[in-house]
Amino acid sequence: MKATMADAARLLRERDFITILCHRKPDGDTLGSGFALYHALRQRGKTCRVRCADGFPALYGFLADGYAPEEFEEQTVVAVDIASLSLLGALREEYEGRVDLTVDHHRSNECFAKENWVDGDAAAVAEMIWDLARELEAEITPQIAICIYTGIVTDTGCFRYSNTTPNSLRIAARLIEEGLDTQPIIRAMFESKSPRRMAFESQVLSGIRYYGGGRCAVISTDQALQEEFQLDDYDLEGISALPRQIVGVLVGVTIRQADGECRVSLRTNPPVDASAICAVFGGGGHLRAAGCTIPGTVEEAERVLVAEIERHLPGDP
Amino acid sequence: MKATMADAARLLRERDFITILCHRKPDGDTLGSGFALYHALRQRGKTCRVRCADGFPALYGFLADGYAPEEFEEQTVVAVDIASLSLLGALREEYEGRVDLTVDHHRSNECFAKENWVDGDAAAVAEMIWDLARELEAEITPQIAICIYTGIVTDTGCFRYSNTTPNSLRIAARLIEEGLDTQPIIRAMFESKSPRRMAFESQVLSGIRYYGGGRCAVISTDQALQEEFQLDDYDLEGISALPRQIVGVLVGVTIRQADGECRVSLRTNPPVDASAICAVFGGGGHLRAAGCTIPGTVEEAERVLVAEIERHLPGDP
Repeated sequence: MKATMADAARLLRERDFITILCHRKPDGDTLGSGFALYHALRQRGKTCRVRCADGFPALYGFLADGYAPEEFEEQTVVAVDIASLSLLGALREEYEGRVDLTVDHHRSNECFAKENWVDGDAAAVAEMIWDLARELEAEITPQIAICIYTGIVTDTGCFRYSNTTPNSLRIAARLIEEGLDTQPIIRAMFESKSPRRMAFESQVLSGIRYYGGGRCAVISTDQALQEEFQLDDYDLEGISALPRQIVGVLVGVTIRQADGECRVSLRTNPPVDASAICAVFGGGGHLRAAGCTIPGTVEEAERVLVAEIERHLPGDP
Repeated sequence: MKATMADAARLLRERDFITILCHRKPDGDTLGSGFALYHALRQRGKTCRVRCADGFPALYGFLADGYAPEEFEEQTVVAVDIASLSLLGALREEYEGRVDLTVDHHRSNECFAKENWVDGDAAAVAEMIWDLARELEAEITPQIAICIYTGIVTDTGCFRYSNTTPNSLRIAARLIEEGLDTQPIIRAMFESKSPRRMAFESQVLSGIRYYGGGRCAVISTDQALQEEFQLDDYDLEGISALPRQIVGVLVGVTIRQADGECRVSLRTNPPVDASAICAVFGGGGHLRAAGCTIPGTVEEAERVLVAEIERHLPGDP
């Protein structure tokens, strides 16, 4: 059932013993939203906890400051920033059919909960939690401010992405006005590359290939390189944004070879449709960011992919 | 003489045939402010033009859209984002003693104009021009919006730096609300590295050195490398931010060797004072960003510099 913010607030006021679920491979928005909601509900005297199939990565440890998990028999389940049941990861079996409330901003949300508050215009779920916390008459404490700001900057790329709205900026303005020190958050989220990651980035960039008169740039890694640098998914996702940042590049391609296949990430600038290219290989995504999987070596995947990309480049460079 | 926004607006209302001066080695704030003011004054029926000792770099060409320079006998001179006469560059001789109005946000402004409106709390001069344009009852046209947004994102690092204020964010919110498409500006300002620059960055990062248990990171370039990659000052300044982005690094050092000496750029994280370190070598700057010049080779400069830096690292890593 579709729900509004008022419905969500009513449900949370009435209920207690609440588990807040964050999505697998958690990011700053799902965790920031989860912990902000946790603190707001605790102010209302509720017993609650935050759960995520993949735990809380060290990078986001500051979001869990002041969090003391409790054991209790849960009576209410809230999913934040979770568009589909598959994003519950290992918790799916435990919670399928048992989610009472969804708070999410993905238009594709599958509405798997009993009540589903989905606002596709919100750049981050944290913006919805800001509204909800105020509706619940929670005080925006310093820790709640940290959590909400982190959620917003995560999903807007620190106000760079096109999803950034006047509301995103105005909430940030309010948080700074109330005394939030944004700098530790900015450093943690955007200026904290590991020395390994820095060395890896340098090596990957040194092997960049250009096609289509410089309008397509390809970088790649293979399993040996990933193992040499002991990189995790977060590191690998971070490099996908690099090729598109080069002047003149309309299609930035990142190929990650592992287990006999290549995972391809595409980022495009107008007018190239990333999802249309990936669809040819059975993948999909958004207009400016999409992905697909192609069997074979990096060289093989690159050859078929570049041939397809060149068909999508505009006639006059 | 110190002036207020009202003084600035009065002066501009009364006067005509106005030259707007931008600082040498222009950036997005001086040019964005200059061109925004130009368009606002044109709406008031004034004859005006924008001048800069170093011209208008191609990177900022979009700020000059709709600008048609006119020849006229100037009666009024306005300096935007210019803290001292030396920043007039080659135009200094022509304009020294002839500047009627300063609009600036540097607390260090030397107040060399007849009337000086200096607001040290403004993150960007473009924020002051926003207020001034409205005071002059100018319509915020799409081109003025582009100029003001560019000025703000330039000086706040797209809302990342600690100088970002609620006012910076709220002006951006208003501009987006009025229909500004921020994406071409973001791409031009933050996601437009040349292929040369990308290759250079990769090579410089591959030679990074760590000291003080990973708390100091040093990168360097010499004249041969700069010539090989045909880099300009903009490219070289861009790499200075990289070492400090590494986890655990408190002092990021960039050494640029040329003509028998080394230009050193220091960026620090709390608690290290960058200007205190550079002062030892006759340089200076701010708490978190400072510079100095050390004679000799990269190796020689690095040795004395690192010895000094290690004295400034906190006792317990």
